[in-house]
Amino acid sequence: MSNLLSLENLTLAEIENILADAQAIKRGELVPHREGFVANLFYEPSTRTRFSFEVAEKRLGLQALNVDVNASSVQKGETLYDTLRTLEAIGVEAAVIRHPDDRYYDQLQEGLTLSVINAGDGSGDHPTQTLLDLLTIQEEFYVIQGLTVAIIGDLRHSRVARSNAALLKRMGANVILSGPPDWQNSEFPGTYLPIDEAIQQADVVNMLRIQHERHAVSMGMTPEAYHQAYGLTLERERKMKKGSIIMHPAPINRGVEIDSSLVECERSRIFKQIENGVYVRMAVLNWAINQKGEKGNGKATYQWTHANQQRA
Amino acid sequence: MSNLLSLENLTLAEIENILADAQAIKRGELVPHREGFVANLFYEPSTRTRFSFEVAEKRLGLQALNVDVNASSVQKGETLYDTLRTLEAIGVEAAVIRHPDDRYYDQLQEGLTLSVINAGDGSGDHPTQTLLDLLTIQEEFYVIQGLTVAIIGDLRHSRVARSNAALLKRMGANVILSGPPDWQNSEFPGTYLPIDEAIQQADVVNMLRIQHERHAVSMGMTPEAYHQAYGLTLERERKMKKGSIIMHPAPINRGVEIDSSLVECERSRIFKQIENGVYVRMAVLNWAINQKGEKGNGKATYQWTHANQQRA
Amino acid sequence: MSNLLSLENLTLAEIENILADAQAIKRGELVPHREGFVANLFYEPSTRTRFSFEVAEKRLGLQALNVDVNASSVQKGETLYDTLRTLEAIGVEAAVIRHPDDRYYDQLQEGLTLSVINAGDGSGDHPTQTLLDLLTIQEEFYVIQGLTVAIIGDLRHSRVARSNAALLKRMGANVILSGPPDWQNSEFPGTYLPIDEAIQQADVVNMLRIQHERHAVSMGMTPEAYHQAYGLTLERERKMKKGSIIMHPAPINRGVEIDSSLVECERSRIFKQIENGVYVRMAVLNWAINQKGEKGNGKATYQWTHANQQRA
Repeated sequence: MSNLLSLENLTLAEIENILADAQAIKRGELVPHREGFVANLFYEPSTRTRFSFEVAEKRLGLQALNVDVNASSVQKGETLYDTLRTLEAIGVEAAVIRHPDDRYYDQLQEGLTLSVINAGDGSGDHPTQTLLDLLTIQEEFYVIQGLTVAIIGDLRHSRVARSNAALLKRMGANVILSGPPDWQNSEFPGTYLPIDEAIQQADVVNMLRIQHERHAVSMGMTPEAYHQAYGLTLERERKMKKGSIIMHPAPINRGVEIDSSLVECERSRIFKQIENGVYVRMAVLNWAINQKGEKGNGKATYQWTHANQQRA
Repeated sequence: MSNLLSLENLTLAEIENILADAQAIKRGELVPHREGFVANLFYEPSTRTRFSFEVAEKRLGLQALNVDVNASSVQKGETLYDTLRTLEAIGVEAAVIRHPDDRYYDQLQEGLTLSVINAGDGSGDHPTQTLLDLLTIQEEFYVIQGLTVAIIGDLRHSRVARSNAALLKRMGANVILSGPPDWQNSEFPGTYLPIDEAIQQADVVNMLRIQHERHAVSMGMTPEAYHQAYGLTLERERKMKKGSIIMHPAPINRGVEIDSSLVECERSRIFKQIENGVYVRMAVLNWAINQKGEKGNGKATYQWTHANQQRA
Repeated sequence: MSNLLSLENLTLAEIENILADAQAIKRGELVPHREGFVANLFYEPSTRTRFSFEVAEKRLGLQALNVDVNASSVQKGETLYDTLRTLEAIGVEAAVIRHPDDRYYDQLQEGLTLSVINAGDGSGDHPTQTLLDLLTIQEEFYVIQGLTVAIIGDLRHSRVARSNAALLKRMGANVILSGPPDWQNSEFPGTYLPIDEAIQQADVVNMLRIQHERHAVSMGMTPEAYHQAYGLTLERERKMKKGSIIMHPAPINRGVEIDSSLVECERSRIFKQIENGVYVRMAVLNWAINQKGEKGNGKATYQWTHANQQRA
């Protein structure tokens, strides 16, 4: 069994393997099958991510146990370690965990045999989101090396942005950051640029979600003012490079981060990201619940799609 | 793929077909099978309806994804359209939706490929409840044309009453309405009568649930006083026609809408309605997720049961 | 169909049969299979118990319907009887119920055909917890007769303690009780002793959970003071008899009822209890949904493990 806590702990080769598996599953070249139970522990609500994991689990043949944030014995003061040891004792193979605390997994002692898959920790990491973003970019551009990716918006509160920026950098992309000065985050690898420049230079424009409307309001901005200042307006979209794409982790605040009519425009890969999320999570679960047998055959035949190989 | 949003959009022939399918499934003459995922999105709590749909889905071979009203990203301000596009992207075939807003489905743009099944909207429609009521009446009386159906109680706040009255009228029934003057609803097709007359004339007495006890209290009535004035008392039951039946959409406030000892009396079809709900929902889901192949063979052999064909 | 409401209603022979089935399932000598639906109605949150039942159900081949405490129509004033009749009507074989009211099942009228499994009522009973405790003790000591079992802690508010003490007494164990004077419970069978004496005499030390931290605080005690006065400290563990074991119903307040480093010590059977819970619940559900056929073959070969047969 393996854990997926943070992509920082994986080698680029491991990450490439997971992405290759996801692609192979998507194409029907790899049909992994697992039996047993997975527990989805969502200590913060996230229908989207939980459904995506649940579909991934069930397509693999796994059975899902779902715990609701309000109905959990977290309220009873049990440690997370004891919760996971309990799941092990009742026969659970893997736990998918979303948790409000940064690096909640640091409190886990050695000795657990079930796999832990991080489905988002505080404002920290969200590795499967990063992997599905990568898969979507890879499908489009084939290689990450040399690509220019702009990550725009609420860089301070976004768990998506941090792990995306770090991994893209490791894979050789040029990372451009943009957004309100108050939300800049000096820990991020990447170069800050004004939004109009960022959008004109990027092959990939990844618009972050405003985590809480109060964040914008606390800066004294209306959603409309935010959209004009830092959002992907129709005008800005027209200045994007030929062949460049739009991404967003969703859920979307239409008219705030992005003009509503751009959500499903030709450049948008937003719902493709969501679709890819299921394949990435199947690959991650299959890798984490590491058993012999079913894997390996399809590997030699992996080929990336080249839908947009000639980059503009 | 088809949607079931409101019965107003369906022809009588389509409705009859769904009812015929439900009956065939109940008799074992039609054994539809579907694979894939259905999402049950209940933005208002309703254990009864959700369980009924979930059993229907699983009997068809479908896998159910359940979202809890509190744990949903509705709170994050996502549009319902985006939620449904997301479900499509992760591979969901149909969404069963209960929603507090009347005609919430009007906000859905064109272009969704998944089926939407309305499981109740605000104080508007509740089409599968109406269909299961129809199935129960049809099993009893064979034809709706010419039947007298009394709908009694909280006509103002009941989403059941409105769609029942409209469809019964379309199918040629005489619809009688009764209840507190404050709760009368001029939009309903049907004739208002005092409760004692209504009950004596009806072949079917459908007692509506008081949606909120505060409604009765706001009229200055105790539950007991309501029961005496507008409920189905033992005395009123004795005046019902020979062969007439009692229905109630449930959950029941015993001793308010109906005397507790009548809930499972010989005339009562209350738990039969609930049983029929599963067959109706199987038929609706099977029709909505419209694929070739499994259907059609059994059709020619459909026959209605005539348990009570000679109407009194 | 049978119910499991309270162990008081079962003969010792019936209890022994369920335990023998659980053991046989654990060893793979009995592989029961059931089809259909079970509803898990948890009117109090308990992830641990619900997951354990859900795994048990799915391993048997049953499909689980889960209802969340907040999303239930309990709030709509429906009687529990009507809820269960509804479940029957939609085709549910058994209902697993956790409920805040003592003896909630007394309100159920005759005539239900589905099985009711009590998963904990108020501060009353919790029969499957008692059975899994018994199974764990039996695996260790083979016979209960003559064993000394100490139940220590919050005897007043614990639903586990009451049914455990009663059944152990019936089976011939010496039951010792210990804990804060304010929490003593004169209804319990057993002899009160100071904690240090209790721990030195016991073959089994069952440390109860403090139900609510406020209970300790209301006595003017810090968690640390409680631990020193009534908890299983490292020092007390050293005085336990050779071969004696530690149990705890979980979830654990580490450092309060028990020193954190003892939770997984050699004497601890805490996670083994949890594992045994799944087998006990499979046996209970299989017994409750009583059908012919699958059972009986393995029965003659049942043998208890004797891991610790020579009692110290």
